[in-house]
Order: sequence, then C-alpha cells, then structure tokens
Amino acid sequence: MDALAPTADPTNPACVVNCAVYAQDGTRRNIAVDAISDVLGQDDGSFIWIGLYEPDDDILEKLQEEFGLHDLAIEDARSAHQRPKVEAYGNSLFLVASTAQVVDERIAYGETHVFLGPRYLVTVRHGASLSYAPARARVEREPDLLALGPSYGMYAVLDAIVDNYLPIVSEFKTSLLALEKAIVSESFDRATVRRLYDLKRELTYMRVNVTPMQDVLSQLVRSTSHLLPDEVRIYLRDVLDHSVRVNETVDVLRDMLGTALSVNQALVTLSQGEVVKKLAGWAALLATPTLITSWYGMNFDAMPELHGRYSYAILVGVVAAVVAGLYAYLKKVRWL
Amino acid sequence: MDALAPTADPTNPACVVNCAVYAQDGTRRNIAVDAISDVLGQDDGSFIWIGLYEPDDDILEKLQEEFGLHDLAIEDARSAHQRPKVEAYGNSLFLVASTAQVVDERIAYGETHVFLGPRYLVTVRHGASLSYAPARARVEREPDLLALGPSYGMYAVLDAIVDNYLPIVSEFKTSLLALEKAIVSESFDRATVRRLYDLKRELTYMRVNVTPMQDVLSQLVRSTSHLLPDEVRIYLRDVLDHSVRVNETVDVLRDMLGTALSVNQALVTLSQGEVVKKLAGWAALLATPTLITSWYGMNFDAMPELHGRYSYAILVGVVAAVVAGLYAYLKKVRWL
Amino acid sequence: MDALAPTADPTNPACVVNCAVYAQDGTRRNIAVDAISDVLGQDDGSFIWIGLYEPDDDILEKLQEEFGLHDLAIEDARSAHQRPKVEAYGNSLFLVASTAQVVDERIAYGETHVFLGPRYLVTVRHGASLSYAPARARVEREPDLLALGPSYGMYAVLDAIVDNYLPIVSEFKTSLLALEKAIVSESFDRATVRRLYDLKRELTYMRVNVTPMQDVLSQLVRSTSHLLPDEVRIYLRDVLDHSVRVNETVDVLRDMLGTALSVNQALVTLSQGEVVKKLAGWAALLATPTLITSWYGMNFDAMPELHGRYSYAILVGVVAAVVAGLYAYLKKVRWL
Amino acid sequence: MDALAPTADPTNPACVVNCAVYAQDGTRRNIAVDAISDVLGQDDGSFIWIGLYEPDDDILEKLQEEFGLHDLAIEDARSAHQRPKVEAYGNSLFLVASTAQVVDERIAYGETHVFLGPRYLVTVRHGASLSYAPARARVEREPDLLALGPSYGMYAVLDAIVDNYLPIVSEFKTSLLALEKAIVSESFDRATVRRLYDLKRELTYMRVNVTPMQDVLSQLVRSTSHLLPDEVRIYLRDVLDHSVRVNETVDVLRDMLGTALSVNQALVTLSQGEVVKKLAGWAALLATPTLITSWYGMNFDAMPELHGRYSYAILVGVVAAVVAGLYAYLKKVRWL
Amino acid sequence: MDALAPTADPTNPACVVNCAVYAQDGTRRNIAVDAISDVLGQDDGSFIWIGLYEPDDDILEKLQEEFGLHDLAIEDARSAHQRPKVEAYGNSLFLVASTAQVVDERIAYGETHVFLGPRYLVTVRHGASLSYAPARARVEREPDLLALGPSYGMYAVLDAIVDNYLPIVSEFKTSLLALEKAIVSESFDRATVRRLYDLKRELTYMRVNVTPMQDVLSQLVRSTSHLLPDEVRIYLRDVLDHSVRVNETVDVLRDMLGTALSVNQALVTLSQGEVVKKLAGWAALLATPTLITSWYGMNFDAMPELHGRYSYAILVGVVAAVVAGLYAYLKKVRWL
Repeated sequence: MDALAPTADPTNPACVVNCAVYAQDGTRRNIAVDAISDVLGQDDGSFIWIGLYEPDDDILEKLQEEFGLHDLAIEDARSAHQRPKVEAYGNSLFLVASTAQVVDERIAYGETHVFLGPRYLVTVRHGASLSYAPARARVEREPDLLALGPSYGMYAVLDAIVDNYLPIVSEFKTSLLALEKAIVSESFDRATVRRLYDLKRELTYMRVNVTPMQDVLSQLVRSTSHLLPDEVRIYLRDVLDHSVRVNETVDVLRDMLGTALSVNQALVTLSQGEVVKKLAGWAALLATPTLITSWYGMNFDAMPELHGRYSYAILVGVVAAVVAGLYAYLKKVRWL
Repeated sequence: MDALAPTADPTNPACVVNCAVYAQDGTRRNIAVDAISDVLGQDDGSFIWIGLYEPDDDILEKLQEEFGLHDLAIEDARSAHQRPKVEAYGNSLFLVASTAQVVDERIAYGETHVFLGPRYLVTVRHGASLSYAPARARVEREPDLLALGPSYGMYAVLDAIVDNYLPIVSEFKTSLLALEKAIVSESFDRATVRRLYDLKRELTYMRVNVTPMQDVLSQLVRSTSHLLPDEVRIYLRDVLDHSVRVNETVDVLRDMLGTALSVNQALVTLSQGEVVKKLAGWAALLATPTLITSWYGMNFDAMPELHGRYSYAILVGVVAAVVAGLYAYLKKVRWL
Repeated sequence: MDALAPTADPTNPACVVNCAVYAQDGTRRNIAVDAISDVLGQDDGSFIWIGLYEPDDDILEKLQEEFGLHDLAIEDARSAHQRPKVEAYGNSLFLVASTAQVVDERIAYGETHVFLGPRYLVTVRHGASLSYAPARARVEREPDLLALGPSYGMYAVLDAIVDNYLPIVSEFKTSLLALEKAIVSESFDRATVRRLYDLKRELTYMRVNVTPMQDVLSQLVRSTSHLLPDEVRIYLRDVLDHSVRVNETVDVLRDMLGTALSVNQALVTLSQGEVVKKLAGWAALLATPTLITSWYGMNFDAMPELHGRYSYAILVGVVAAVVAGLYAYLKKVRWL
Repeated sequence: MDALAPTADPTNPACVVNCAVYAQDGTRRNIAVDAISDVLGQDDGSFIWIGLYEPDDDILEKLQEEFGLHDLAIEDARSAHQRPKVEAYGNSLFLVASTAQVVDERIAYGETHVFLGPRYLVTVRHGASLSYAPARARVEREPDLLALGPSYGMYAVLDAIVDNYLPIVSEFKTSLLALEKAIVSESFDRATVRRLYDLKRELTYMRVNVTPMQDVLSQLVRSTSHLLPDEVRIYLRDVLDHSVRVNETVDVLRDMLGTALSVNQALVTLSQGEVVKKLAGWAALLATPTLITSWYGMNFDAMPELHGRYSYAILVGVVAAVVAGLYAYLKKVRWL
Repeated sequence: MDALAPTADPTNPACVVNCAVYAQDGTRRNIAVDAISDVLGQDDGSFIWIGLYEPDDDILEKLQEEFGLHDLAIEDARSAHQRPKVEAYGNSLFLVASTAQVVDERIAYGETHVFLGPRYLVTVRHGASLSYAPARARVEREPDLLALGPSYGMYAVLDAIVDNYLPIVSEFKTSLLALEKAIVSESFDRATVRRLYDLKRELTYMRVNVTPMQDVLSQLVRSTSHLLPDEVRIYLRDVLDHSVRVNETVDVLRDMLGTALSVNQALVTLSQGEVVKKLAGWAALLATPTLITSWYGMNFDAMPELHGRYSYAILVGVVAAVVAGLYAYLKKVRWL
C-alpha cells in the first residue's frame, strides 16, 4: 500500500491511508488532513478523497466537522456492524458496503463505509478488506472520468468490492463440484455431510451480505441525486450487473446443494437396501446347510440315510449342490 | 424505575409511571395528570410525555378526553392483543409495537402502544417489556433533538424496543450452534430433535412479531405526516435498519435450522446403515463356525474326519482360521 | 334470533330475518318488504337494512327491482358458491364474505353476501353462519355511528364474521399442541399421522377462505367510494387488522405443522435405529452360547474336554460368564 | 352442433362452423363467408361472428384480408402452440385461451383463438374443446346484452371455457380423496405412489394452462380498450373470478398432494418399523428354544440332567413355559 | 455461412462474418468495414448490419469509433461473461443475449451482443451459437418490414435465439420421461439418481440463462426508445411470449423432477420394506425346521419319540407339513 501511495503526508495519523486533492483536470496532490478546510475554501472544482482504515474517534470527529457529516452516519462508521445500505443525509450520501476476503481458508467479512459529498469522498474500511489503492490508481489513469467528480471514485471502490466476490464464488463452485463427486461415489460418509452443511452455511452468509449490496447498487443506479452524474450511473449499472451475477450464482449453488442433499439421501437409502439384501442373501447361504446338518444330527434310531456306505459323500455333494445353486440364484436376483 | 424518575407526582395513579412536560428548550417538569389541560391551554411549544404500565380504564378515558384520542385506539390500548401496526387517526398517530424479553429462560412477548400528537406522547406498556426510563433519560441529555417535538421521544422508545431484540437473537445463534455440534457428533438423540423443534417454534414466533415491526418502521420512515419532522425520520430509518438486521438474522437461522434437520436425517440414516452392516458382520462371524460345528454333529456312520487322532485339533485350527480370515475381510470392507 | 328481533313484520316471507328503516338519528322502525319503495321515496337521510337467510328467488327479484341491483350480483347471491370478493356495480357495492363455524366438531363454511347502496344494506347469509342480530343490536346502541349510513352496519357484520374465526383458530392451536406432545412422546402411531394430515387439510381450507377476506377488507379500506365515509374506513381497518392476525396465525400453524412432520420423521427413524440395535444385541446374546453348545455337540472321537469330571460344570460357568460379559458390553454401548 | 345451427350457409367450407351477422337489435342472419365485405360495407351497428374449427390457410387468409388482421396473429392462429395471452393489434384484440376436456379418461388440452374487432368476432378452436354453439345460443337469448357488441359474444365463449374446467377440477378432488384413503389404509403400494405422481403431473399441467388464463382475464377486466364496454367488463370480471377459484383449488390440491406424499412416507416408515419388530420378535421366539435344545445336544460325558427319568418331560415343560412367557412379553411390548 | 453470404467483402477481417448496407427499400449491398463512414455520411435512410464472431480488439475499436459506442459496452462485448441484459447508452441500445446449443450431447451456452443505433446493427457472437445467416436471409425476404429499420434485424436475431431453445427444452422433456419410467419400474438404481441430478443441474443452468432473457425481452417490449418502432415491438412481444413459454416449461420440469425425487424415495422405501419382509419370511421358513431337528438332536436318555419304528417318517411328514403351512401363510400375508 505504501508503495502505491508513497507520498502520503507524514503528519497524518496512521489510520489515514490516503488523503489527496484531485483537481478538475484529474491531477492528484497529497495533503495533510489539517489542510482540508483550506482546500474546501477554494471553489475550484477540485475534490478531496480520504481513505481510512479502522479510524479512531478523533479523526472521525475532525472529518464530521470539516464536511458536516451526520451524527448517525458517524456513529455507524465507528461501530461497523451495519448491513449494506445507502442513505441520503441532506446534501450527502452515506453508503455501507459489505466486503469479503478469504483469510486463512475461511471467508472473512468486512465493511466499507463511504461518505460522498459534492467535494469529498471518504472511504472507511473495517475488518477483512483489501486496500483500495489499486482502485485509486486505476482512477488516476482516467482523468477524463475523474473529472466527473468524487462519485467516480466511489464507483471504482464499489467495483473493486464486487470484483473481490468473484474468487470466493468460484471457490464455492469448486467445493460443490467436489461434494457432488463424493456423493455419487461410494466414498460418501459423515465428513461429506458435514462439509455439505458448512458449504450451505457459507452460501447463506454470502447471500445475506451480497443481496443487500445489490439493493444498494440498484438504488444508486436509480437515484436522482445530483451527486451522481448520469455518466457515473452508467458505470454503477455495470457494477450492479456484476453483483446480480454473483447473487444468481450463489442462488444456483444453494439450489443445487439442496438437491445434492436429497440425492444423497436417495443414494444412501438405495445402498442400505443393497446391504440388507446382502445380509439376507448370506444368511440364507449359511442357514440352508445348517438346517441340513442339524437334520442329520437328530438321534432317531431309524434314519436309514445315516448308515449307507456313501451316505456321507452323497450328503457332501447335496450340500455343495444346494449351496452352489442358491448362490447362483441369489447372484442372479442381485441379492448378493 | 423509581430511582430514575424520583420526582414523579405522588397524586398520579400507580399505573402512571411518568408524566412530564418538556419545554421547547428541552427542560423537563413533572406534572400531575390533572394538570394536563392547563399545559395544553398554553401554546408555548412544549409537549407532554406520559408513560403508563397496564393502565386501568379511568386513566385511559381521562387521556382520551384530554388529547381527543380515537375510540378504536383506546380499545386497542386496553385489550393489548394487537399486532404491530401504525394508524393515523386525524391529527394523531397510534402505533403498536411488539416487545420481547427473556423471562425465566423463556421469551415473553409484550406490547407497547404509542399515541403521538402534535403536543403529546403517550406510551403504554403491556406484559413483558423493560421500562423506557433509560430511553427517556437518554433523550433528556439531547435537548436539541428533543426540541424536534414528541416524535423524537417516540424514536427513543422504538430504538430501545428494537435494541432489546438483539440479546434474544444472539441467544438463538448460541442455541443453533449447540444444536449443530450435537447433530454432527454421535451424541444425537431424541432430546436434540426436541430442542431443534423448540428453537424452530421460537424463531417462528419471533418472526411473526418482528416482521410487522419492520413494516411499521418502514411506514413511519416513508410517512409524510407533519408529526414526523424529516430529521426524526432519519433517526427512525436507523431503527428500521436494525429491525431489518434482526429479521435477516432470524431468517438465516430458520434456513440453517431446516438444513440442520435434513442433515441430521442424512446422518441418522448413514449411522443406521453402519448398524445394519455391523449386525450382518457379526451374524456372519457367528453363523460360519456354527455351520461347521453343526456339520460335525451329524450322526453318519461313516465320517472319516471324526476319527483321526488330530482331527479335533485340525478342526479347531480350521475354525480359528476361517473366523480370523472372515474377521479381517469384514474389517477391510468396513462391515465391522 | 326471534327473541332479539321480536317486532319483525309478520307479512314478510320466512327468509326475511329482518327488515327495518334506520332514521338519520339512528332510531329503528321495522317495516314490511312491500313498504320499501315508500321509504325510498322520501329523501330523509334514512336507510333500509334487510337481513336474509338463504332467500328464495322471489324475494331476490323483488329487492333487485327495488334497489336496482345488478343481474350478476343477484345470480351470485342465489347460487352461493363464490369466493370472497368485493365488486362495484355502478352506485353500489356487492361483497361476498366467507363465514366459518364449528358444527358437530367439524368446521363448516358459509357465505354472506352484502349489497351496499346509498340508502340500503342487504345481508344474505348462506350455510353455516351465526345470525347477525347481535351485530345489529350493537350498532343500534351507537346511534352516532349509525348516522354515518348503511356502511357502518356493513362494518358491524364484517367485524362479527372475522371475530367468529378466532375460536376456530384457537381450536387449531390446541390441536397442534396435542400433536406436538404425541410426536415427542413414544405414543406416536398411525392415528397421530392421520390427525396431522387432517389438521393440515383444515388449515389449508381455512387459509383459502380467510386470505381473500383479507384482500376484500384491504380493498374496502383503500376504496375511494363515497359509500364508505372516512370514519367507517377507520373501523374497517380494524377488522382488516384482525383478519391479518388470523391469517398470520394460520400461516404459523402451517409452518409448525410442516416442521412437526419432519421432526416426527426424524424421531421415527431414530427409534427404528434403536429397534435394529436391540434386535442385533439380542441376536448376539443368543447366537454366542448356541455356537458353544453346537461346538460340544460335535462327534469327534477325541474331544478331551468332553470327558473331564467337571467339564460340564466348567462349560456352564464359561457360557454364563460369556453371556454376562456380552450383556454388560452391549448395555454399555447401548445396543440393548 | 348441426342441430343447433341448421341454417349454416352450405357454400362455406367445412371448417367454418358458423358465420352469422347480428343486427343491432340482436337478431341473427346466417351468411356466406363471401358476403362478409358486403355486410361490413354497411355501417348499421351490426357485427359478424364467425366460428372456425381447425381452419385451413385459405379461410384464414380470406379473413385476414376482410378484417385486416395482423400477420403474427394469423400465424399464431394457424400453428396453435401458444400460451394464453391477449394482445392488442391496432384497433383489434387477439386472444389465446386454453381449453380443457376429458377425452378417454385423460385430460386433453386445446386452444381457442379469438379475434375481436369493432364489428367482428372470430373464434378459432384447435384440439380438444367443446363447441361454442351453446354459448352462442345463450347469447342469442339475451338481445339486450348482444347489442353491446361482439365483446359480449367473446365473454360468452370465455365463460364457457372456464366453466369447462370445473368438472375436471372436481375429478381431481375425487382422485385426491381416493389417494388419501389409500394412504391411510394398509393397502398402500407402488400403484398408489404411481397414481399420486400422475395426479401431481396433471395438476401441474392444469396450473400451467389455467394461471395465464387468469392473467388474460385480468388484463381484459383492467383494459381500457374501447372494444370492451364497461358493462361487458363487469361480466368478464365474473369469469375472472371463476378462473381464480379454479386456480385456488388446483393450488390447494397441489399443496395437499405434497403433504400426502410426506405423510405416506411417514406411514411407510412407521409400518416398516413394525415389520422389523415382528421380525425380531419371531426370531427371539425361535432362537431361544433352539439354544436350549442345542444345549442338550452336547456330548459331555457327565450331564446329569440327561439321565433323569422325567428329565425330558421337564425339559418339554420348561421350553413350553419359556416360549409362552416370551410370547406374552413380546406381545405386551408390541414386538409381535 | 459462406454459402449464404457469398459476396462478403474479401478485404474484411475473418471475424467479420457479414457487413452490409440495407437501403430504405430493403435491398442489400455488401461493403467493406472501411466503407462504413462513407455510408453514414449520406443521410438516405439506409442502415448498416455487421455480424461478428468472437471479434478481435482492432475491429471492436474501429466500430466503436465509427458508431460512437460506449466504453463499457465495448468492454462487455470483448470479455463475454455477461448475463442477459439491455442497457441504453445515450442514443443507442446495448443488449446481451444468452444462446444455447447442443454440442457433443451437452448443452453449451454462448452469448450474443447486439449494438443497436439509429443507422446500425452490430451483432457479436461468442461461444456456442448458430450463425444468424438464416435470420438475415429471412429478413431480406421481407423488405417492407426491413424498412422499419435495424431494430427489425435485431428482432430476427432474438427470434432465432429463442427458437434455438426449443429443441433443448424438448430434449429435457424426453429425459424426464425416461427418468419417470425408470423410477416407477423396478430397474431403478444409482445411475438413475445420477441422471436425475444431472438433469436438475442442466434445468437450473437453463433457467439462469433464460429467465433474464425474458426480462430483457420484456424491457424491450415496454421500452419507449425511438429506436424501437411500435410495429417492431409487436414482433418482439411474440419473441417474449416464446421465451415465457420456454421458462414455464423449464419450471414445470423442475417441479416434476422434485416430485420424481420424492416419489422415488417413497418407492425405494416401499421396496426395502418388501425386502425386509422377504428376509423375515425366509428366516422363519428355515429357523422353524432347524428348531425341530435341533430338538431331536438332544441326548436325553428317555426320548420315546426317537425309538419308534415310524418315528423318523412321521418327523419327516411333520416337518414337511409345518414348512408347507408356514409357506402358505407367509405367502398369504405377503411376507414372501
């Protein structure tokens, strides 16, 4: 991050990742936070973009005073347990976006809060979230669009947030594919069910975070606020479209996961039926000769079969034949 | 409660928890209920806030007369079996809110009814509900906002109600987590299913109570009534947002609970399959030597094996070998 | 019914339960059906309220002529197989409401049709439905409200209809509670499943009847017809609210019933697993000594164990020890 | 059909079931298709009603030319694989309705296409559908309403179509009732499940056909086209209402069918549990005496019990007592 | 493709499948891409239609410059991972359509992007998709309609896309039918469940692709853009209708598939019950004579039955009778 913004003013507190003025021609100049009021004093079409990471109360109060931000918005930005939303406070917009990032093989969610005014853009990151330095760098390469005002910077941030969902969704797809393979294979076990449940939970949380993002973007696209020029709204429409696509994919995955659970249940029941059949088949294969041997264990005085010379040999043959015949039959009807 | 409002007028009936006039500068003066008409007689920008707890008919009739409340609203406030709603009666609003509180480890629901007029705010609590004294105290610390009129007091009450949902929702999350652990562990039993059902019921009732609260708040935010200044509607929007968050969490929990039930069914079926396999495995392990012993219990005259010197020893060896081999095989195919 | 309306005109046909004129001051005067045109001839702010029970064609034709009712509405009122609806025919409203009543321990549904015009109110009851005499009596005690016109009478009828749903819904709750108890107890059997199915069916039919009632009431509340003064619409809003509450409760019951069915399935599967375990446990307990006894039934010449003096006693001890040990083990792993 | 329209012009092709002019006073005059342009030439308030059954291209082209019908509508009318819809083409309406009829104990679906213009009504039947001659006859008995124009004829056709759904829905109800009886009885088998699946499929197709019919009727009722006088729209509202009722019933049946499937699963599982219990019970009843007899088959030298005079008699008694006691116990715990 | 458009300009790059000017009278003239600006320079009511297949960046940049296309639209057209959508950029429309085609027995999805301006139509195909040469040929046979402008060409392309769904949907129906047969037959096995899951997945992806197509078409039909004359919107309405029909069929198939899965589960459970019954029946048939033979294997001194002359013969008879009787009984109660 430092590498990308090496000229950041050293007098700014650590939580101020970036603080710069963008002139009407799109050129950038880093300033100290204390210089904000001077910049706002000149009506030269420039705007200020400040990037904060988990700011302390002092800097938030300072900004509230400079830009006239609303108490409720500041309180939200401080506590960071908000759902995605966009709210108009007089001549400014306050936006909460939900960010997601894979940290240590788990999905961690964070929040980014955005204050948008006629001449300022404040982005506040909380928790898991990538730096917006690349978004800022990209914007600076497009001075024509940056001249549209701070809302184009907001677009770049939102675009980066939604793009960050994509690798997670793609990870979900891979997980489902692995589950599907496990389900139709014979190796299905408790661990598979547990992973299935975990995936379902992650998809559910993803959905809770992304669906309101779609609403937020949709509101921005339809908004009539003069803070959002028509040209910027066209760009926001593009972000909205990406968020819809993420949402759709999550819904498809949830749907398939439910079906996978049902199909798994069907397959487990089927294979249990086969186990019971095998159990029955082998029981028959053992119980039949047992009956015969038990028969000739009877102590009747007169059992002529017992006394023949080849009786025993015949019995061995009969038992072998019975077992072989039974085995063949049970194989045929697939009970073995 | 007494501690927070020690100066309450002693001539008021017991069900009047609070009765005060707030001057335009936000200062408070406790008054007797009988003094209401005097206060209303002076058009000095002040308003009256009365807090009742399960009021009797006398006091309701008195207030109806003083403030010109509608018959239907008074009837609702008396019976207290209403769903959350907001209704306009001429120049006043009547609002029913659903409150929830954990009492003796169970969730108890109550109702709070609010009458809002240009110069009065009446809050009527029924059943399980915390006192609004903290909400009142908070408001009194913000005289600027209190000067916006009685609707800011109503906001404080609604904010307290929705905030009271949060510990309950958090309790739900803990319960689900415990259930999830029980389900994937082997200790799953009838008691777990019962707790699962109980949680589902509590979530369902929670939803029935909170969803219309969200509608009520949404109506207030969109309302064009002059009783609700724009500035207050911004604060109500914040409460709405919290109620949406509660609702979302309840929905996620319901969704996960349904999946947990399915997953549990899958796991139970799986473990039954293992039981049947074990049953079959042990049956085979016992039935095989039984067949052999039964064989040599036969009484044929001529069974040469019976008469050899080492016959018995050989048999013992053969049986041991067969059983050991079978055991090894069944272990390998996981039928034991 | 006769007791409540003893002065009904004897010249009216039997299906005319009531026929009265209400003067502008709310006073009532019973009249003969034939006198209707005389009353309508005088423009004195009075209105006529006629109550019918399963009327014949003659009286319907007579009323059609007097009040100028629409062919289709009359046809509907005759056949009585309509779903709840409200329809405007020129200067009049035609409304179909669904009524419910417990008759012989079963829920019977009926219909009430209402014709509302500027100066008349015709209520036609079909099938199971309580008399509206109490509603009429209540209205007559409120001459101020009755002065609002015939729509207030319609409100009283609709209020009575929706209130009649409440004991049925409460009965449903009791049934579900009994089912829940049966499900978690061990006494669950085919009869419980059958009752569960019956309850589901009754809830489904209830829903089909009550949901459109809510639509009807919602249309009336939003209606801009001059037949419904604002003040009456406030009262109808109250009825709407009750119908929403009925609907919500039915939905909650349906939801819980579905969960109960799943939970029941889970419990039955669980208890079957226990049966199979017991089966396996007892099989092992019997098969093990059988193997031992079978062993010593073998006829080998040389089985030294058979000839010892204490051999038999030792065998008895060994078998007893094996069985006892196995029993203890199986108890411990809960297979017995 | 011939009987009802005996005077049909013999010069018309076979697919023209009916071709008549209705004068402003509602009187009918059969004409040849070739005479259409003459009739349209006179602006005397009359309109033409043509009924076709699976028409060939010639007659469709002829009518397209005479009435100025749109290419797309004609193409639709020719191919007859449309879903119910209503579409405005300039000064005319094109409507596709779905018809249903029981043919050879199966439900066959057909289509009826309607072209409605200021002075013409063309009805085109395809596939399974009853003749509209009765609808036409009914309309001719109501000259006042027929004077409203061709749209009243369209109403009569739509009314006949929706009325034809009723016997099918009633047949569905009977099928569900029979299934419910089979499910709760013991006679439940594969054939029942198959019938259940078939019913589900038929309900699903019914729904796919009837739901858009409801949309079509709803669009007509709300339409502001001058082709549909207010008075006719009141009649269409009546048809809409019937279609809503059909739809609701189908939905209820689908819902109950789903529950029936679940309930059936619960009952099958329950009865399997009973089978397993019986299996276990009888196994115990046979295995116990087998153990005893196996015991006394042992060849120990010293088994004093074997040599007593009454030993065998005692054994018989003991075995009988054990079996009887076990039987009684198993009966008591319902394992037999 | 070449055959259909043999006169394509040889100077165009390979990815330009077609590039032609359509004069106001509908006649076609192939041009080189470089000649576009000349054509646009003359305001003679003609329009240009360019067909591309997976174009390179050069040609896209060229077209962007000529027609003034928006950056975002060009970026979308390049990357081709968009969901179906339609977006207005100033005086032009950008449309993404989803195409489907069966390739190697699997469904492959592609995308077609359309740029529509007052005087141009650019169609860009990506991935699996049939050539639009037939659509173009059809349009050229209707010069009257082509005179409506480039939007009629767009209609022809969209019509071809939606028509291409039909054989796939019909394939789905065949698959479901085969699955239904497998389910109700006895031949149901793991492979059937796997195919069921695969069909479900394909239906889900189909739905994700076709549903937004319906939205896109619906937006076009309701659009007020001057790029879409009323007459063309009537044709688009027809395409919309086809897409609705495809969607409905997919939904019906999904619904039936879910039911098929449940029904299959019911049938598998039923047939498992039969297996267990058979297992129990055969066990009884073997265990009963085993008990008898075990009985007479006992070594009691005094077992008079053993010594009779016909004892053995009688025993044989008794065992045969018992087994036969048991067999008959078990057959009767359907346990065999």
